[in-house]
Order: sequence, then structure tokens, then C-alpha cells
Amino acid sequence: MGNPQVLIVMGSDSDLSIMEEAAKVLDEFGVAWEMRVASAHRSPKKAAALAAGAAARGVKAIIAGAGMAAHLAGVIAADTVLPVIAVPIPGGALNGVDALYAMVQMPGGIPVATMAIGKAGAKNAGLLAVQIIALGDPALTAELVAHKQAMADEVEAKDNALQERLRRS
Amino acid sequence: MGNPQVLIVMGSDSDLSIMEEAAKVLDEFGVAWEMRVASAHRSPKKAAALAAGAAARGVKAIIAGAGMAAHLAGVIAADTVLPVIAVPIPGGALNGVDALYAMVQMPGGIPVATMAIGKAGAKNAGLLAVQIIALGDPALTAELVAHKQAMADEVEAKDNALQERLRRS
Amino acid sequence: MGNPQVLIVMGSDSDLSIMEEAAKVLDEFGVAWEMRVASAHRSPKKAAALAAGAAARGVKAIIAGAGMAAHLAGVIAADTVLPVIAVPIPGGALNGVDALYAMVQMPGGIPVATMAIGKAGAKNAGLLAVQIIALGDPALTAELVAHKQAMADEVEAKDNALQERLRRS
Amino acid sequence: MGNPQVLIVMGSDSDLSIMEEAAKVLDEFGVAWEMRVASAHRSPKKAAALAAGAAARGVKAIIAGAGMAAHLAGVIAADTVLPVIAVPIPGGALNGVDALYAMVQMPGGIPVATMAIGKAGAKNAGLLAVQIIALGDPALTAELVAHKQAMADEVEAKDNALQERLRRS
Amino acid sequence: MGNPQVLIVMGSDSDLSIMEEAAKVLDEFGVAWEMRVASAHRSPKKAAALAAGAAARGVKAIIAGAGMAAHLAGVIAADTVLPVIAVPIPGGALNGVDALYAMVQMPGGIPVATMAIGKAGAKNAGLLAVQIIALGDPALTAELVAHKQAMADEVEAKDNALQERLRRS
Amino acid sequence: MGNPQVLIVMGSDSDLSIMEEAAKVLDEFGVAWEMRVASAHRSPKKAAALAAGAAARGVKAIIAGAGMAAHLAGVIAADTVLPVIAVPIPGGALNGVDALYAMVQMPGGIPVATMAIGKAGAKNAGLLAVQIIALGDPALTAELVAHKQAMADEVEAKDNALQERLRRS
Amino acid sequence: MGNPQVLIVMGSDSDLSIMEEAAKVLDEFGVAWEMRVASAHRSPKKAAALAAGAAARGVKAIIAGAGMAAHLAGVIAADTVLPVIAVPIPGGALNGVDALYAMVQMPGGIPVATMAIGKAGAKNAGLLAVQIIALGDPALTAELVAHKQAMADEVEAKDNALQERLRRS
Amino acid sequence: MGNPQVLIVMGSDSDLSIMEEAAKVLDEFGVAWEMRVASAHRSPKKAAALAAGAAARGVKAIIAGAGMAAHLAGVIAADTVLPVIAVPIPGGALNGVDALYAMVQMPGGIPVATMAIGKAGAKNAGLLAVQIIALGDPALTAELVAHKQAMADEVEAKDNALQERLRRS
Repeated sequence: MGNPQVLIVMGSDSDLSIMEEAAKVLDEFGVAWEMRVASAHRSPKKAAALAAGAAARGVKAIIAGAGMAAHLAGVIAADTVLPVIAVPIPGGALNGVDALYAMVQMPGGIPVATMAIGKAGAKNAGLLAVQIIALGDPALTAELVAHKQAMADEVEAKDNALQERLRRS
Repeated sequence: MGNPQVLIVMGSDSDLSIMEEAAKVLDEFGVAWEMRVASAHRSPKKAAALAAGAAARGVKAIIAGAGMAAHLAGVIAADTVLPVIAVPIPGGALNGVDALYAMVQMPGGIPVATMAIGKAGAKNAGLLAVQIIALGDPALTAELVAHKQAMADEVEAKDNALQERLRRS
Repeated sequence: MGNPQVLIVMGSDSDLSIMEEAAKVLDEFGVAWEMRVASAHRSPKKAAALAAGAAARGVKAIIAGAGMAAHLAGVIAADTVLPVIAVPIPGGALNGVDALYAMVQMPGGIPVATMAIGKAGAKNAGLLAVQIIALGDPALTAELVAHKQAMADEVEAKDNALQERLRRS
Repeated sequence: MGNPQVLIVMGSDSDLSIMEEAAKVLDEFGVAWEMRVASAHRSPKKAAALAAGAAARGVKAIIAGAGMAAHLAGVIAADTVLPVIAVPIPGGALNGVDALYAMVQMPGGIPVATMAIGKAGAKNAGLLAVQIIALGDPALTAELVAHKQAMADEVEAKDNALQERLRRS
Repeated sequence: MGNPQVLIVMGSDSDLSIMEEAAKVLDEFGVAWEMRVASAHRSPKKAAALAAGAAARGVKAIIAGAGMAAHLAGVIAADTVLPVIAVPIPGGALNGVDALYAMVQMPGGIPVATMAIGKAGAKNAGLLAVQIIALGDPALTAELVAHKQAMADEVEAKDNALQERLRRS
Repeated sequence: MGNPQVLIVMGSDSDLSIMEEAAKVLDEFGVAWEMRVASAHRSPKKAAALAAGAAARGVKAIIAGAGMAAHLAGVIAADTVLPVIAVPIPGGALNGVDALYAMVQMPGGIPVATMAIGKAGAKNAGLLAVQIIALGDPALTAELVAHKQAMADEVEAKDNALQERLRRS
Repeated sequence: MGNPQVLIVMGSDSDLSIMEEAAKVLDEFGVAWEMRVASAHRSPKKAAALAAGAAARGVKAIIAGAGMAAHLAGVIAADTVLPVIAVPIPGGALNGVDALYAMVQMPGGIPVATMAIGKAGAKNAGLLAVQIIALGDPALTAELVAHKQAMADEVEAKDNALQERLRRS
Repeated sequence: MGNPQVLIVMGSDSDLSIMEEAAKVLDEFGVAWEMRVASAHRSPKKAAALAAGAAARGVKAIIAGAGMAAHLAGVIAADTVLPVIAVPIPGGALNGVDALYAMVQMPGGIPVATMAIGKAGAKNAGLLAVQIIALGDPALTAELVAHKQAMADEVEAKDNALQERLRRS
């Protein structure tokens, strides 16, 4: 792939198993991504630099995943006008509620698009990035429409399988 | 203004005082919007129709505000591939935590970009919509950069005013 | 059995292990049921169609189980005047509190009869459906009365067993 | 009106301003109701007697409203096989979350159909009772369908009023 | 032992592993106890009868353990003027917070002495019962004083062991 | 009155409006009390001395009210074997949930009998103290039984008043 | 006063009414302070510069107050090795619980000393700063000891006033 | 090492696996520490004595770890003017939220510097103690600066490793 359209940043490489859900979705839609480790607290300059430089490199959306007092998405949003999408990482004694509150309750002026805690959130972060990029790409929009239909078809298939199972039992 | 680029939907007209914060931001950036009342529960067909028809009318992002068991954003996201931005409306015994959870905890496949509870969230919803639209509009991007600088200048001005006040006291 | 009197809908087939508790109770009372997979978000039209068509097929109550931002019960209640019973499915970082709030905090006009999170809730959903159907069926009422007595007898038996165990220790 | 079809019980007469929302809905649909004060803790025998005697008097559903450690609905459900609908009353330091948990988290065997905290919940309790009674009363079902349409019309009217207001501003 | 001075009631025999902590403490102090299974919901008459008859049998305090929407302590307190001590049982999706709220938030007029969720709470319930009984029994008071000293000694011993371990490492 | 049988301690005189509910109940039953201000943090020696000296002065139970990180009840319980009853005081950003958790979640070995947050809790603290003292005082027990009946009568009177009001409306 | 020993930073001048509690305490102990407005999100470079330059100016501790998704303390701590003290500001739908979690749940490596939500927290932030500075200043330590005694005396005076009031009533 | 500069106190030796994270950090910076077991409830005199005597022994900061209704840090802070750092220990049904609230919500006058729940909090408690001691020790400050740089370097290394891994996959 060429230049990344989506930049995925995570506060620690231990967040990889969750954040790769976002990358998988982007791969599915053929959207190029870059994945980086940068910490709002341990490497603040790097996080700020990644944020500040993203637009010039052609990045269209930034996905940030972090846990506990999760400042990464807010810190990145402070240094870019690109859409920033936040994924609260579960774990610790509060299991991600701390990360959720630290991401979603942004004060006015600095939006952070917050997703569900954990893998579902990471997957949706990827999808939202695709939806954003698709606004300027009719082919990608068509793929999203097809993906939506495929989800409905998958529900239908599961329903049919359940009917079959129930009939046999 | 011409065709709306942002569709603002609220579950009840009692949410207007909060949701107009989004409209104000869009006005500030010259982004055309449409504001509608539609309920996921009391007028589900209308909500679905607004969602399903938005893209064809040129809408680029949908902002949905609702309170309590706030299904509006999810119901709209079910019928569009446009980015959907959710604003949890405070009120009721749980004061918007119910709306926050009902919006942000979307299962994988249907992203909803959730903002803070209340006016700060509505304002940020407007800003995120501008950020999304600006990806295809360099002039709007420049305005966002200027807006960011203006926020920093405003903090500077408040800091200066505080120093002045402290010197005098 | 003949036409279903109770329609059980779940958002995903992964909810089956919980929702089958409702079916077991209905079986115990000889109440015919149908169990379907339909998602408020991934297959909204199917969910609405199931809701809208249920009454005409003789369904007397609909049980809906879903997790996270659990919109299924509300979306179904929007399209029927049948009693809708909700079962919050545990799981995810909030373990079903999100589903509970997204189900129980319905705004005025669209009631959803919410049960406990998880298996106890699913079992009680089945029982509530039986109680509702029994209003027009004295024999079923008699079975409910007997079931209530059997629960008391079971407590008595457990108490007796405990006394026996304590005497021996 | 004749014999009550719905029995509304509240733990204290201070709950009246909330619980009368249920009575208003029942009046709207011409469903006869009786409203009683009985406490699970201060007058447990009375609460049990009201529950145990309701079915024989023709009652079809019992609505119970209580606050704090709200045991009333569960105590009533323990002594009847009629559907019991619970309304958590807000107030106190936990503002009704305590009442919600004490009502909705019923163990398996004793269902309590829990509504939202406060007035919306009381209104919906009345509506759910009407839905239950309507199962044996086609005219009442027709009224529910009309009521649903009226809600959609009201949303439409509010949307139209908003469009008018926005055009003028 | 003779007549029980403390009555331990639990809502289900599955609570035994927690509630036996209370019995162990009572054994330690030579206070006679009786342990019964009775449910506020499944066997309400039995629970009420146990409560109402306890004082006449010489019981001085009642310990009630229950989970989820834990009404047992309140239901017992409604039928006795003996001190009632509540132990919230953990488990279920809310892990005992529901039981805690359903026990501790009793309305004015019916006190329930609530302990911590789980085994620590059950142990303390036993100790509180001993403290209450000791008010009329100087020998028991002396044992409580000795027990308090023994706890301090045990902390001292653990501290000494830690110092030893640290010195060696 | 003679020597106090109940010692009421509060962390700050601002807690008086809540804690006097306990004193009122004790007055109603003719139980002598003493009310003191002592802080676990600002005057720890005084709090410990009050606790340690209470039994020798004839005190039978200690009621402790405090807010926020409410350590007062635990600190008192650490220095006495008398029953200690805790009243969480509402207020602050967490409105008493912090005080509730800091009181009810005592580790094993040091029981604290925790009541509801606020005035209902203070009233019940007084009642529990009376119940404890009544174990050695049959006349007081009779008063408690009469008080319980009076509460039932009051519910009955309120119910009758409601019926009257409804008949007239 | 000379160079500030404590730097107080707040995210918005609307936090002043709370944060001035810290300044009052510092004035009481004669510790020089500087108070600045800087936002982690709206003026990140300013916040980082204040943090990075503080030590060289002789600052010994930094107090940071912010609300909602309160990143200010963490962002400052990322750019200094001075002790950073955090004050969660109440307000918004979550009333400071969001700010508390966003401050206290810092990941390992970047400590933030978190205080109570609101004015009590701000006051204690000032006191903790004095305690830290007093480690190198025996006179200041003596003042802290006197302050501690004054608090105990104040409790004593309030207790005496209460005894007086009770005697007269 | 010589006299301890940091006193680590824990309520129970079961907290050792968490609290030793603090000791490890102190070892890393060559700061001498002492670790003691003392309980606010089971050995209050010992806890108070440790607190009261620490300053005279040259201790510069006290770290207190405790779980559930965690009073240890507050009880220690009541008897010293040294900075007290609190570590909420996870565990029990509330998993440390009770300990967090019981530590961080200290009333005005007695500051307790609260860290995150669990191991991250213990580690940061050690670091904060080092930061406090470093105010009077330029060499230690230099080590803290180096440690901060090492953390940034470690993030960089992890990012490089991730890039390598992604290139290969």
C-alpha cells in the first residue's frame, strides 16, 4: 500500500491485541494504515509530533487506543485538526471505565470520537475511519453499503442455522 | 445556505437547548445544517428514513442527540454508512450516564462516534463534523487551524487577565 | 406445538446460552415459542418486521435479549403494541450494566419490561410471559400457583437438608 | 368505573406525584384502577394481603412504586402470580439507582417487570398494564395502535414546528 | 449447645460457603446459633414466620444473607424488633453492589445493620452479634477484648515475619 | 436523664442536622444519649479516647456519622468492643457513596453496622441502638413492638386518606 | 513574596473559585505561589512549557486543577520530575468522577498525587505542597505541627459549643 | 542502606505483592525504605505510633497501602505532617473502588496523595516519594530526569519493534 490514510496510535504495545481489530477492518476495505506506539505520558513529544505531522503525510483520521487515565486521544487531538477516534482499552481495577471517561468527556473545543471499550470499539474505530474516508471515495462507499448488507445476511444465516438446530432438537 | 452537509437529529424538541450548540459551531464555520426531530421509539420509520436518505441529499455527517435509553444514534447508524456522531443528553435520574452507555457501547459493525454528555458534547459534535468535512476542503481546514490557534490565544488572554487580577489584589 | 405465543429474539446467536433459559420455562408450562436472531443494528428491517408482524401471528409477548448498547428491545417495542420483555445480556467491559441502562431507562410512551442481567433475567422473562398469557387461561394460572408452591417446597427441602447436614457435622 | 383491573401500590404517599402518571395513562385508556399505600417494611401483612387477594378481585396487573431499598414489588410478586410492574422512585443520596437495582435484579422464579426511574417509568408502567390487558380486548388493542400513531404524529408536529421556527430565525 | 442466640438465615443454600463465616465466629465465642434457608420471594411466609418467632425462642440477633435484589434482611426486619444484620452476597453481573444497595438503603423505621459484601461481611456479622449479646454478658465482653488484642498481636507477628523475610532477602 | 446509653459522635458539627434524627428517636424511647464532635483525622486522639472510654461509662452502642472518606466509625470500632453503628453523611461530589463505601466495606474483624446515607440512616441508627438496648429491657421491647404497630397504623391512615382523596376527585 | 515555590495551573479560569482554596492555604503558611491558566487541550504547548520550566525557576511542586476528561495534571507530569498534585474539578453530568478517574488512574511511571474532588481537594493540595516544601524547612514543619494542633483545638471548641447548646435546649 | 527515607506501611501482609512495586522503585533510585505491617483497625496504636515517630527517624514520606474501607492512609496522615501517599489495593467485591474512595476523598485539612488502584499505583507511589526527596538532592533529580528519558526511549524501542514486526508480517 502507499501512504497511510489512517494512523493508529497506542499507548503501549500491550494494547496491540485490541488495536489490531482496527487494522483488520482497514485491511478489509483496502485502506492503508500505519500503527505506532506513543505514550501521552512517557513520550509526550513523540505523541505530539505524530499528531502534528499526520495531515501533511496524507493521513485522514487518527485512531488512538489507551487504558486507565487514557490521555492519548486528547493529547493527539490537541495537536491536529484531523478527526481523532478513541478506543478505551479495558484492564486494571476499573476495567476501562476510567479510560472511557478520560476519553469521552472531552471539554468543548477538542472533539474525540469515542468508541466502545475493547475489541468492539477498536473494530468500530476502523469502520468509522473508513466511513470518513469514503465521503470522498464513491467506490469505498459502495463497499461500505455491501458490508452493511453482508452483516444483515450474516444475521439471516445465523437465524436460519438456529431454526435448523431448533427443528432438530 | 444550500443543501445541508450535516443533519442534526434529536429525539425530542426538549433537547434543542443542548443540540443548538452543534448548530452554532457549524454556523461559525459556514457549514450548512438541517435540524430535525425524530424519535427512535415514537417515530422509528421517520428516523430510519432520515438516515437512509441523508447520503443522497449530500449530507456528510449525522449528529444524533438523545437522552435516557438513547437508541437514536444507533438506530440511525443502522440505516446509513455516513459517519454518525452521538450526543448523550443529560437529565433523568441517571443524568445522562444511561444515554452515554446506550450510545458509546455499540457492538462491532455499527460505529457511533460518541461525545461528552451535554453541551460540551454537542459543541464537539459540530466540530467533529467540520473536521470530517474539512478533509475534502482545504479552506475549511485552514479555518480549523485558525480556530485552534484562537482557542490557544483565548487561554493566553484569560491567563493574562488572571495575572492582572492577582497583581491588583 | 402450534403457533408460537411467545417470540424470543436475540441480537446474536452468542446470546443463546442465556436466552434458552426463557425457552425452558415456557416449555415447562407448555407455552409455544419461537426463537429468532435479529439485530437492531445489523438487521434493523428484520427486527422491525418481526415486531410488526408478531401480533397477527398470535404472539402474546416478545422477549428480547441483547448486550452492550442493547437497543433490540426498544426497537421492537417501537413496532408493536404487544408487551415486550427485555433481558440484558452480560459481557463486555461493563458486564451488562450498559445493556441494563439501555433497556430499562426507556422514555415515556414505549414500555419495556426489564429483567435482571443474565440467566436469572432470562428465566424470569419466560415466567412473566407465562403470567401474562395465564390471564386468559385459568389452567395456566393454576400451573403458576403450583409452580409457586413448588418453589416454596424446594426451599423447605433445602432447609431440611441443611439441618440434616448441620446435625451430622 | 367497575372493579379495578390494575392495582397501583406505593410504599409511601410521598410517591403519589410520580405514581399518578400511571393512573393518568390508565384513565386515558379507560382501564379501571385502584391506588393503595402499603409498605413492604412498615405494613408487610397489608402488602402481602393486597397481593394475595388481587387476582380474585379481577385485577390483571399490579404496579408497585417504591424508593431506596425498594422491596415492595418483590414482596408483592412473592404473593401473587399476576404480572407485577415495578417503578423505581428517585430520591435519596443514590437518586433511585438503589431502587432500580433492588427491583430489577430479582432472582430467578419471581419476575418483576421493571421500568425507568421516575415519571417516565410510571407512565410506561401504566402503558404496559394496558398492553397486557389489551391481549384479551381487541378494542383496547386498537386504542394502543392509535396511541402509537398519535405519538408519531406528535413527533411530526414538533418537527414541523421546529422547521418553522428555524425558517423564521 | 442450648437454644440458639443467633439465627442465621440465607436466601439459598448456595450462600452457605459465605454465611458459614458467621457461624465460625459464633462458635469461636461459644454463642449458639441456628442456620436456616428461607427466601423472601420463594418462601415469604417461612421467612416472616422465622422472623416473627425468633424473639420468643430466645434469639438475640438475626443475620440475613442474600444476593441480587436482596430483600431477605428487610423482609425479616419487617417482622421482628430484634437487631437484624445483613450480609450482601456477591455474584451475578453486579457482583453484590445490587445486594448492598438493596440492604443498606432501608427507609426510616426499619433498620438493617449492613456489613461488607461477602466473607468479610459474614465474619463481621458474627462478630457484631457477639458484641450485641456481650452487652449482657461480661465474660463474653472479656473474650471480645481478648480477641481484639489477639488481632493486634497477629498484626505484630506478621510485621515481625515480614521484617525477618526482608532482612534475609 | 442519667448516664448516656448511646454515644453519638459526628466528624463535624455540620453533620448535626442529620445526626439529630438519631437523637430524636432515642428521645422518643427515653434512651439517654450523649452527642460529641470528634474527627478521625483532625482529632484522632479524642475520637480514640471517646471510643475506648465509652463502655466503662455505661454506653451500650456508639453511633458515628461522617462524610466523604468517612473513617470515623472504623476508627471508633478499632478502640471498642461495643456495637458501632455508622451513618454515611451525604454531600460532596460523590454525595455520600464515598462515605457509604468507606463505612460498610470494613475488613473482617472490625464490624461496623452501616445504615442508609443521610437522615433515614440516622433515624435507623437510633432505632437499631434501641433494639440492641431493648434486648436487656422488656419494657423497651414492648415500646418497640408498639412503635412497629404505630408505623403500620400510619400506613393504614395514609392509605385511608388517599382513598378519601381519590373518591372526591 | 519572591520566586514562587508552588505553581498552580488550572484548565480554565472558571476553576478559580475552587483552586483559590489552594492559594489560601499557601498564603497561610507564607509559601509563595504563582497561578496560571493553561489547557492540556487548547494550549498544550503552554502547559508543557510551564511544566518543563518550573524546576529551573525554583518551583518545588505543581498543583493542577481540571474537570471532565482532566488531562492537565498528567500532561504536566509528563514534562517535569517535580511532584504534581491533582485536583479534580466537579461539574458536568458526571460531577467530577470523570476528572477523578482521569487523574488518579495514571499508568506506572508518571505519578500524579490526586486529591478529593472540589474545594476540600484544592485545600489539601495546598497543604500537601506545604508538607513537601517543609521537608527542607524546619520552621515550616513547626507551623504544620501547630496547624495540626489548631485543627484538633477547633474540633474541641466545636464539641464544647455543641455541649453548651445541648445543655440549654 | 542507612536510615529509611521512606516508610511503606500496608494493612495486611497479603498486600505485599502489590506494595513491593513501591520498594522496587525506591531500590532503583537508591532510596532507603522500611516496610511495615500495621492495621488502622486491628492495630490502631501501632499505626499511629509508626506515623507519629516517622519524622524523628528521618523519614521523608510515608506510603500506605490498604484495601476495602481503606482507612490506613488517613489514620497515618492524622498523626504526622509528613507527606502521605496512598495506594488503593484491589480485591473484594468492589475491586478497589471502595479503597480508592476511602483514600482520595479526604476532608480538608488532612491531605493524602492518592495513586491508581493496584500495582501501577504502588510503582507511582515509589516514584512520587523519590520526586519529593529529590527536591533536596540534585543527584537524585538528575536520576529522575534520566529515568524519564529512559521511559521515552523504551517507548521508542517498542515502536521500532512494532514497525519491524509489521514489516515482516
